[in-house]
Amino acid sequence: MTNFNEEALRKHKELKGKIALSLKDSLSTQDKLSTYYTPGVGAVSSYVAKHPEETRNYTWLNNSVAVISDGSAVLGLGDIGPYGALPVMEGKAMLFKHFANIDAVPIVIDVHSADDIVKTVEAISPSFGGINLEDIAAPICFEVEERLKKKLGIPVFHDDQHGTAIVVLAGLINAMKIVGKDLSSCKVVVVGAGAAGTAIIKLLDIYAKPIILAVDSKGIVSKNRGDLNPEKQKLLEITNPKNQSGSLEVALKDADIFIGVSKAGLLNKELVRSMSKNPVIFAMANPVPEIMPEEAILAGAAVIATGRSDFPNQVNNALAFPGIFRGALDNKVVKITDRHKIDTAKAIANLVDKPSSEYIIPSVLDKRLVSEIAKVII
Amino acid sequence: MTNFNEEALRKHKELKGKIALSLKDSLSTQDKLSTYYTPGVGAVSSYVAKHPEETRNYTWLNNSVAVISDGSAVLGLGDIGPYGALPVMEGKAMLFKHFANIDAVPIVIDVHSADDIVKTVEAISPSFGGINLEDIAAPICFEVEERLKKKLGIPVFHDDQHGTAIVVLAGLINAMKIVGKDLSSCKVVVVGAGAAGTAIIKLLDIYAKPIILAVDSKGIVSKNRGDLNPEKQKLLEITNPKNQSGSLEVALKDADIFIGVSKAGLLNKELVRSMSKNPVIFAMANPVPEIMPEEAILAGAAVIATGRSDFPNQVNNALAFPGIFRGALDNKVVKITDRHKIDTAKAIANLVDKPSSEYIIPSVLDKRLVSEIAKVII
Repeated sequence: MTNFNEEALRKHKELKGKIALSLKDSLSTQDKLSTYYTPGVGAVSSYVAKHPEETRNYTWLNNSVAVISDGSAVLGLGDIGPYGALPVMEGKAMLFKHFANIDAVPIVIDVHSADDIVKTVEAISPSFGGINLEDIAAPICFEVEERLKKKLGIPVFHDDQHGTAIVVLAGLINAMKIVGKDLSSCKVVVVGAGAAGTAIIKLLDIYAKPIILAVDSKGIVSKNRGDLNPEKQKLLEITNPKNQSGSLEVALKDADIFIGVSKAGLLNKELVRSMSKNPVIFAMANPVPEIMPEEAILAGAAVIATGRSDFPNQVNNALAFPGIFRGALDNKVVKITDRHKIDTAKAIANLVDKPSSEYIIPSVLDKRLVSEIAKVII
Repeated sequence: MTNFNEEALRKHKELKGKIALSLKDSLSTQDKLSTYYTPGVGAVSSYVAKHPEETRNYTWLNNSVAVISDGSAVLGLGDIGPYGALPVMEGKAMLFKHFANIDAVPIVIDVHSADDIVKTVEAISPSFGGINLEDIAAPICFEVEERLKKKLGIPVFHDDQHGTAIVVLAGLINAMKIVGKDLSSCKVVVVGAGAAGTAIIKLLDIYAKPIILAVDSKGIVSKNRGDLNPEKQKLLEITNPKNQSGSLEVALKDADIFIGVSKAGLLNKELVRSMSKNPVIFAMANPVPEIMPEEAILAGAAVIATGRSDFPNQVNNALAFPGIFRGALDNKVVKITDRHKIDTAKAIANLVDKPSSEYIIPSVLDKRLVSEIAKVII
């Protein structure tokens, strides 16, 4: 197996970054200079200054997205700051271009309070047709996204929350077909109550209202706990109807679905066996999942998904965000709503003709994804 | 003659913007995804988080520049806001790429006080290898540039000030050869005391200490005036040694050099005739100069330069900034100093083998420019 760490260090150093700017026409003559720069561009500037809504037709606003991170929660690496975040944001810009032909710009910022992040993004927002927030730590990410969605007239999407939630829902829609259960009647345990976990819980609640238990590093999120931040307190409105307390072990008893966005090795065979029949396991900790697929299967899991590309059923945000932004930009959608998220999950699930335990989610390389998703962002 | 306004509107609408993102390698296989995005990119992020100074070797920081404007002084159009500014900043990004192979990103911002502009640029600065400030109105532009130069460890350059000043100095160096005068003994009248005029005055003073009179819309900048902002008060230290007051007419009497960054038609034959013998006229108001070249020549001008490409001797910022940023990025220069500006002016002047009244400045299409300038940014 390729050592991707070594290969990544080698290729990044060789290329000195992964993205570049390109021009849609040449500037090789004085006439071209006069058309694209002065004096000609003055007419374009005057025109769009008077008709700001036309700017997208005369500039790259119709196709540009900022990928913005403060570096406070980068991959599984934690708070490594803006420089640490830059290689990931450049990578994300590559995904935007490759999958959806969107011109994305990595913007890493050296401010970290909700106020400062909101002010900075608001200030630069006229430069872009959309804002993709990335790798901003919970709970700040929630406030940042909410405030920006209210303020800006362009789509704002925190991919760590909603990208993950959408793909998890897509996978669950197909997993339910395999185990013959109805998601509405399932008991779901979500482990990890940060950005991704919270968004997964909210989306599952909107879609099917299953019984959900949220579990964080202190155990089940319950009314009895005095250590919950406001965002976790809000989760109590849609989780834990019986107000259970205790550890993951307590939560998992008779659960139908385990969704892990937590850490390596948190789940074991014994715990899987304590779940209800034909349990569905989404073990998405990266790079090492909460339980390895072979172990989960040995313990009776009917379906297992991970975040990794070397196992079947990879839950990968890249399934969702390229099509969502493609659709939003093309269809002039300025708010990504819960309905958009659910329709995207359904569109992804529908691309799997015959779901099987090893095929509940299409490959990220499936060329139908972007156009099928873009259709529902209307 | 082509109507560049119509052509510009047509081409901008057809192309929907002039720039795009491109990828340095493809993402067509799962292995490439694993190298440039997860899991491989995690190793790169961990590495540069620990060694931030190495970020430029693993990301596009070594070649990226932000072109930043608040839209408060766009071309001759004035305060037309960030959307109005965007076509110009995209055009500037084209120039960066075409002339210097630099990956520039247009960032138009919707904040306008010095404090807010500084905070915004500082916040996003880890994303870029350099900052090109553009079309920010005087006097705020002076404070913004000064504060950012102090705060940031990457080159910050306000092109409207220094780009113009450098190219004017380059032109004057060669014009002096034609008229057989020494710049140090000349009387220079600079009309327009905004960003460009102020920077021209400062650079001429550092280079040759000629006698300089600054003239704005209220007349000669003198101690007798009560309406001077702090930046204009500072100009008194290096201009107007005899504390003259009055109009442009008074200022121009026996002047050797007229430098106009003001408005159309401000100069006429009679005024040119009032200057000393063999006057040098830089009439750079755009699109219509302070005096048309044929008129100036009729009145006895020895050399006339304008900002226009359809006359000889075009004073064009694009002669300077591509080479300056190319040199700064390649040679890891983090401050553009006065010495850099003067050396750049000399390098530009030196590209003209045999200066004549119609050829004191090389063409912006001269392919030697970037490499010759980059050499002196050390």
